[in-house]
Amino acid sequence: MDAFRSTVRAMMGYTPGEQPRDKAFVKLNTNENPYPPSPRVAQALMRAIGADLRLYPDPVGTDLRQVAGRLYGLAPEQILVGNGSDDLLAMLMRACVGRGDRVAYPVPTYSLYDTLVEMHDGEPVRLPFSPDFHLPPGLAQIGAKLTIVCNPNSPSGTLTPIGDLARLSAKVSGLLVVDEAYVDFADDNALPLLARADNVVILRTLSKSYSLAGMRIGLALGARTIIDELMKVKDSYNISRLSLVAGVAALEDQDWMRENRSRIRSTRERLIASLRELGYGVPHSEANFVLARRAGANQEPVYLGLKEHGVLVRYFRSDGLEDALRITVGTDAEVDALLAALRDVVAAS
Amino acid sequence: MDAFRSTVRAMMGYTPGEQPRDKAFVKLNTNENPYPPSPRVAQALMRAIGADLRLYPDPVGTDLRQVAGRLYGLAPEQILVGNGSDDLLAMLMRACVGRGDRVAYPVPTYSLYDTLVEMHDGEPVRLPFSPDFHLPPGLAQIGAKLTIVCNPNSPSGTLTPIGDLARLSAKVSGLLVVDEAYVDFADDNALPLLARADNVVILRTLSKSYSLAGMRIGLALGARTIIDELMKVKDSYNISRLSLVAGVAALEDQDWMRENRSRIRSTRERLIASLRELGYGVPHSEANFVLARRAGANQEPVYLGLKEHGVLVRYFRSDGLEDALRITVGTDAEVDALLAALRDVVAAS
Repeated sequence: MDAFRSTVRAMMGYTPGEQPRDKAFVKLNTNENPYPPSPRVAQALMRAIGADLRLYPDPVGTDLRQVAGRLYGLAPEQILVGNGSDDLLAMLMRACVGRGDRVAYPVPTYSLYDTLVEMHDGEPVRLPFSPDFHLPPGLAQIGAKLTIVCNPNSPSGTLTPIGDLARLSAKVSGLLVVDEAYVDFADDNALPLLARADNVVILRTLSKSYSLAGMRIGLALGARTIIDELMKVKDSYNISRLSLVAGVAALEDQDWMRENRSRIRSTRERLIASLRELGYGVPHSEANFVLARRAGANQEPVYLGLKEHGVLVRYFRSDGLEDALRITVGTDAEVDALLAALRDVVAAS
Repeated sequence: MDAFRSTVRAMMGYTPGEQPRDKAFVKLNTNENPYPPSPRVAQALMRAIGADLRLYPDPVGTDLRQVAGRLYGLAPEQILVGNGSDDLLAMLMRACVGRGDRVAYPVPTYSLYDTLVEMHDGEPVRLPFSPDFHLPPGLAQIGAKLTIVCNPNSPSGTLTPIGDLARLSAKVSGLLVVDEAYVDFADDNALPLLARADNVVILRTLSKSYSLAGMRIGLALGARTIIDELMKVKDSYNISRLSLVAGVAALEDQDWMRENRSRIRSTRERLIASLRELGYGVPHSEANFVLARRAGANQEPVYLGLKEHGVLVRYFRSDGLEDALRITVGTDAEVDALLAALRDVVAAS
C-alpha cells in the first residue's frame, strides 16, 4: 500500500521565490521590506529571551489579538493569529474545502492558492483578470466555498476598488477572502466591509509593511462565527512566544511602519517611471512591488541577465507571465542598482 | 451555503492544557521542562535579532537539518523541520489521510491524533493498550495509512520496547509513525529502525528535553522518499528565523540537555516513589511526567483541590482516565510543593 494520497503523489508543491543563503544579491524577488523592523521589536525580543522560552506560547495570542483589535477597531475574538498568512490560508482551506469543492479567484495571482486547493482535492476556478486587472465578470456565480481576491494583487500590484469587493461579497455563495498582504502600501483597504458583511475574511501579514517576514506573523480578521470555526483547525501552538512578542511591538509602532511605507511608495513611483522609460508596460501598483511587462517578449533572459549582475527579481514561467518580471521596491540604492543592471541587460540583448 | 465543511462544524477542536497567563501556579500540567534552555540559545538569539528579521527564513531550515543530521547520523534530506511536532503530525495527516482512510494507534494516548484524523475525515482505529501498556495485538492488521505509537506514551509515560516497534514496522501496511516527543528522557529510542525500515517516521521535538516549548521546533526523521512527499504539504515558511537559530544552538549543547535530563530523571524516581507511598498506582515512566492512578476513584476533585493549592496538573475527562492525574516532573522544589499539596488534598477528602 502506498501511504501517500494520490493527490499528494501527483503534486509538485509550491515553489517559493529563491532565498539565497549568501548575501551577495540585491534581493528584489520576494517582496521583503528593505528597511529593518521597528527598534521596539528588537527591544521587546531582548526582554523576552530567557527562561520562559521553556513554556508553551499563549495558544491564541491574547496580547497580539488585543493590540490588533484596538488598531483595526475589532473585538479580539474577531482576530485569529497565524504563523504567517500562509498558515491562515491553509486553515481556510482545511475548514472549508473538501473533494470537489470550488475555490474561485482571478488570475494571475498568488500561486499558493492553486497549491492549497489541489492539496485539499478542491476544484480551482481560475478566472482571468481583464487586461487592466479588473475583476472578471462571473466571479460571484461560481458557487465557490471560498472566493479569494488578493488585493493589492500579486504579481500585478493593482488594487481592486473596495466598492467592487463590497458588491462581490453580497453576491458570492461562500466566504470572500480578501488577502491584504500588501494593503498597507495602498490607498484603501477592505476593513470597513467587516461591519457590513458577515462572510468576509481579511488576511493581513506583518511580513511586508512591518518588515517581519522572518517572524511569520499573520492575522485573519472577520466575524466571530468565522474565527471560531477556523480556530478548530489551527495547530494548537501555531506561533512562537517570540513571534507573538515581535508582533505586538511592531503593531505598537505605527509611526515606524508609516515612515517606511511612505519611503517605499515614493521609491515605487520612481521605479515605475524609470521602467516605463525603458519601454516596459507597468500597471499602476499599490503594493511594494511592480510588474514590468514587455508584451510578447519572454523575460527569462532578462531575469537571468539581472541575476548575473547580482540582482534577483521574480520571473514566472506560467500564467501568461513569461513576458513579465515582478520587481520588489527596495531602497533607492537597490532600485538604482536594478535599473543600472537592467539598462545593461536590455542594451546587450 | 455554509462555507464550512460539515466535519469542521461538528468538531470540538483539540483542547490544549491550561496555559495560565499569570505565574502564580506551580505548573505541572503540560510537560514543560522546569529548567531553562541552554545559555547558548539566548546568545544565538541575541545575535540574530536585527535587520535580517525583515527577510524570509530559509524555507527548509538547512542549518538545523545539518546539525540534526550530524546528531542523529542521518543525511539532511532525511530530516524535515516543523513548527513543533504538531505541525509534522498535521503534515503526515494531510499527506496520507483522506476520507475513510484508517489511522491506527493504541489508546489512551496524545488526543491530538483524534482531532487530526477527524479533521481529515479519516477513520481513527483506537486500540486499547493492555493494562500494563503493552502494544495491543492486531495493531498491524488494520490496513492503516498511518500507525502511530507515542513512545514514551503520553499520558502513561511507558516505553514500548524498540524490538516491538521493529516487528510492528515489518507488519503494518502504511507508515509507522513513532512520536518520540519524550524520548530523550527514556533509556532507548527508535533511531536504529531508520536504517532497517523504509516506512518509519520518527518525530522529535525540542519542546521538552531542550526546554524550548515556546519556540515551536519539531523534527521528522525518515527515508528521503517520505520526507520529499511531506515537504509538498509543508507551509512554505513554516518556521521563523529565530526558531531555526534557537534550534541549532540547543542541539549544539548536548551537555546542557543531558544534565537537565539527568536531574529530571532522578526527580522522577523520587516523585514516583512518593506517589506510590500515597497509595497511587504509577506505571514505570520513561518520560518527564508520570501517571498517578487510584483505580476507580475519580480524580477530578483532587485536580481541583491541587489547583486551589496553586498546583496545576493534567486531568482527563475521557478515555477511562478519570481515575488518573498526569503530573509533569518539575524541579525538586516544585515536586515537593505538589506532594505537600497532594497530601493536604488527599487528607481532606
